[in-house]
Amino acid sequence: MPGGSPQTLRPFLWRARQLYPETEVVSRTHEGIVRYDYDAYGDRVAQLANALASAGYGEGIEAADRAGRESESPGGARLATFCWNHHRHFETYFGVPGTGAQLHTINPLLPDKHVQYIVENAADRTVFVDPSLLPKLEGAVADGPDAFETVERYVVMGESVPDTDLDAVAYESFIDGQPTSFDWPDLSEDRPAGLCYTSGTTGRPKGVEYTQQMLWSHTMGIQSPQGIPLADDDVVMPVVPMFHVNAWGLPFSATAGGAKHVYPGPKPEPADLAGLIEDEGVTVTAGVPTVWLGLMEHVKENDVDLSSLDRLVVGGSAAPEAMIRFFDDHGVELVHAWGMTETAPVGTVSEVKHGLAEADYETRLAKRGKQGLVVPGLEFRVVDDEGEEVPHDGEAFGELHVRGPWVTTEYFARPEATEAEFADGYLKTGDVVTVDPDGYVDIVDRAKDVIKSGGEWISSQELENELMAHEDVAEAAVIGVPHERWQERPLALVVPSGDDADSLSDSLRDHIRQQYPDWWVPDNVVTIDEIPKTATGKFNKKALRDEYSDGSLVEGRVPDDAAPE
Amino acid sequence: MPGGSPQTLRPFLWRARQLYPETEVVSRTHEGIVRYDYDAYGDRVAQLANALASAGYGEGIEAADRAGRESESPGGARLATFCWNHHRHFETYFGVPGTGAQLHTINPLLPDKHVQYIVENAADRTVFVDPSLLPKLEGAVADGPDAFETVERYVVMGESVPDTDLDAVAYESFIDGQPTSFDWPDLSEDRPAGLCYTSGTTGRPKGVEYTQQMLWSHTMGIQSPQGIPLADDDVVMPVVPMFHVNAWGLPFSATAGGAKHVYPGPKPEPADLAGLIEDEGVTVTAGVPTVWLGLMEHVKENDVDLSSLDRLVVGGSAAPEAMIRFFDDHGVELVHAWGMTETAPVGTVSEVKHGLAEADYETRLAKRGKQGLVVPGLEFRVVDDEGEEVPHDGEAFGELHVRGPWVTTEYFARPEATEAEFADGYLKTGDVVTVDPDGYVDIVDRAKDVIKSGGEWISSQELENELMAHEDVAEAAVIGVPHERWQERPLALVVPSGDDADSLSDSLRDHIRQQYPDWWVPDNVVTIDEIPKTATGKFNKKALRDEYSDGSLVEGRVPDDAAPE
Repeated sequence: MPGGSPQTLRPFLWRARQLYPETEVVSRTHEGIVRYDYDAYGDRVAQLANALASAGYGEGIEAADRAGRESESPGGARLATFCWNHHRHFETYFGVPGTGAQLHTINPLLPDKHVQYIVENAADRTVFVDPSLLPKLEGAVADGPDAFETVERYVVMGESVPDTDLDAVAYESFIDGQPTSFDWPDLSEDRPAGLCYTSGTTGRPKGVEYTQQMLWSHTMGIQSPQGIPLADDDVVMPVVPMFHVNAWGLPFSATAGGAKHVYPGPKPEPADLAGLIEDEGVTVTAGVPTVWLGLMEHVKENDVDLSSLDRLVVGGSAAPEAMIRFFDDHGVELVHAWGMTETAPVGTVSEVKHGLAEADYETRLAKRGKQGLVVPGLEFRVVDDEGEEVPHDGEAFGELHVRGPWVTTEYFARPEATEAEFADGYLKTGDVVTVDPDGYVDIVDRAKDVIKSGGEWISSQELENELMAHEDVAEAAVIGVPHERWQERPLALVVPSGDDADSLSDSLRDHIRQQYPDWWVPDNVVTIDEIPKTATGKFNKKALRDEYSDGSLVEGRVPDDAAPE
Repeated sequence: MPGGSPQTLRPFLWRARQLYPETEVVSRTHEGIVRYDYDAYGDRVAQLANALASAGYGEGIEAADRAGRESESPGGARLATFCWNHHRHFETYFGVPGTGAQLHTINPLLPDKHVQYIVENAADRTVFVDPSLLPKLEGAVADGPDAFETVERYVVMGESVPDTDLDAVAYESFIDGQPTSFDWPDLSEDRPAGLCYTSGTTGRPKGVEYTQQMLWSHTMGIQSPQGIPLADDDVVMPVVPMFHVNAWGLPFSATAGGAKHVYPGPKPEPADLAGLIEDEGVTVTAGVPTVWLGLMEHVKENDVDLSSLDRLVVGGSAAPEAMIRFFDDHGVELVHAWGMTETAPVGTVSEVKHGLAEADYETRLAKRGKQGLVVPGLEFRVVDDEGEEVPHDGEAFGELHVRGPWVTTEYFARPEATEAEFADGYLKTGDVVTVDPDGYVDIVDRAKDVIKSGGEWISSQELENELMAHEDVAEAAVIGVPHERWQERPLALVVPSGDDADSLSDSLRDHIRQQYPDWWVPDNVVTIDEIPKTATGKFNKKALRDEYSDGSLVEGRVPDDAAPE
């Protein structure tokens, strides 16, 4: 059959080693700054691959799977990470998929029950875990050991293993002594290479698999002039966590472009980020608005040299206009990008297009505040409630549907979710948007009832179920209300079942806190007489948002350490 | 099965229409300058698609094929073009593959017998032909009508049909009245979308099919920072003919990038090119060195404003260093690219990499004179005669082998050629190269015995066979010798079978001229006593090249109208 050879990640690392053996990978870790080059990186990735092959996770090994899903997902063993952004995590990015195994990046900020669900769902066979995240993982294992039945080993990302009940080996011991070359197999481009779960409206996160082809496609897509192109003189610092859709694909595209990598490590503070920008000459960085709000405050109060920084990519939520202006004043172009776990993730990028480049600043600012222009290679449509496409006039709105080579067409082993979330080959994004005559997509509402706080999803429905399970609650609705630092925070509105409403807020928040991480706990629980209903008897969330979303009920109530990151 | 939706050309045109409806396509034609925008282009492409569907070339139609090759090439009808670079040809680029049919771009400069062979081999069902090329095509049909048995219609690229014996319709009549929208089908990415024949060492050209995926991949590959990225403020003029590997893919990548297109039409003279650069503000152009030699001479003698021009991409053969310096002096960056029909075509691009950007001019010039750095997404190896990979030290040489998503893995219906030209998944390019420690590939020799004149291949073996078929010739060898304008020209070295060598040169050249186009005729036929042989008894071409390649035997002998373009 005619065609080229398969699209896999292999050529990107091969090329970086050939052309840029001395270009650096810099990593802030628990052990301090680590610095090596592509050549050494390639050696260590090969050592990891050899260690994985020795452990039985090579090309020929198919996924062992309780649910009998081999035919749906004909990949190799699924190996998980539970890590922040550092060089060892980056080594798994090429090392795991390159052998034919599948890299499953777990979000360590999730509630324990979610972690348990997805490890069980994915049937992970190894978990790579950061020392600082080990207690969190131990808690999840202790609380639900059955979910971890398939896990054969825990690899702690460091030189040694802290005291733990888990059957753990240190990463450096795991790869030590392995050969520094590996005979990378010729993989099918359909082979699952990555896996990332997304939290939706319901309690069960949904897995999105990334095939080798999807990762190749996304890499090439964002390397195009209207993506987030990275050249060999760029220095790229992904602040977006590597468990969030492969840090938006930047570790792959930076390698394809031959750029220098900078990984900011566990829970970087604004001062850490500023220091890395200055010390390493970062030219491009990326993360959610909360991160840049922190950096902004830091820059205002300290003498920070941002002169190396060209582009600051913002995703997850929209950046406030003041932030765009602030960074413009400091010579840094803030670029919006929109995407989802399902879109691998970048779908639109808000560059100023030809014809607008000469427009006045306010006009350009208005465009840049939108989610942006579709990346070449993808297609979208915007449909109203009747399923009709709406005009691109900047006024008419509808749900954004998107399709393309790096947009998934299914959820992992969840046919009912696949059935619900896709139509005519398009992913139904749940984002309600307008498209202006210049083609800029702007999110104006969310069709799905979820809350995004500091770049992390909180399921309002799950919180409502939990609240309504409490004996003192008759009805409960949870809505996201705007928040300056976290973009959104959850607010609970409850109808008490009895008369004793006085101490209900504190007791319900304690109730949630027992089951969920602090950052899931609603900032406030307000008792009301009745939840407004729609004509079909459902909770009228829109009416609640209209009434309660001025922010005064949550402002100042969330402590910094309740943050998702 | 996990994965994204198929990689096809459809999103590129869809996006250009959405975002850049007013960006122009400008075309120099037999009828003068034609100018319209992406919106009108999209309308006309849809009209073409509707006309093709009406003619029975829609998605569901599989290729009718004498040789019973359906299973090897499961595509649609093959429709050929026999055209220069203009807007109608560009309309076929999206219109034909978009319906599910396969666009077969024929090189009208080929000898008639080659045209006959490839039309028959491809079983083309329609031929789109330029009015100025109609006599050439008529001649090929008249001389070998059986080869054209599958051709159902000839579509003449214009408003009307000149007097002809062929069953022809004018392009404008063909699409007239068709709807300006088309329901573009969801095609498999494995579907053949293009077809281009390459002339090799033997007489029979070999077909290379481009699947939708290969064209998508090549487009994204050359849009990356180290390819030939085209942005929405670029104005792109492909001078390289559209029958040469889709004009190096630029019509597709320009559309993906939202750039303005400029097509220079039939046989543009240097003055035409200079005029288009000035009038249309061309920023990027591409072609073989012969073209730029012509422009260079024109610029020296005339007052030409090249200020809009940023990049001049040179492929097909290496540009002389003086040419690089000349364009540098005029603020135009000459960029070498290397590729083949089999590589769709771009494989390397000679950008100055990071770390060399600050080097002195002569150092950068030396790098830029090489074929360049491999484009991200591809892999190569360089192997010596023993099949061992050679070090990348700029000294050791071997044959370049390349593989990747836009590198073909077979020839169209030619398993014996596929067997010969591929190894371990790599295409054996036939180019003998060195790779320096910076990764720059440099062609130092050609493993295959072919001649490349003005960007077009001439088969030395075929000419030798033709000469040796002459009664007055005992032995004949044809070699390519350097030529200032055409880079190479053929020189024949013959051993007469009798004593009458005096008028042999003229009579043998007449003999070749009867069978081949003027530009295939050796510039000189030199009689010698004996052809040197290798140890295994083969013609020692290397010894001949060493002795006769100073150029004095051919210089000044080829008239301008014997040029391939």
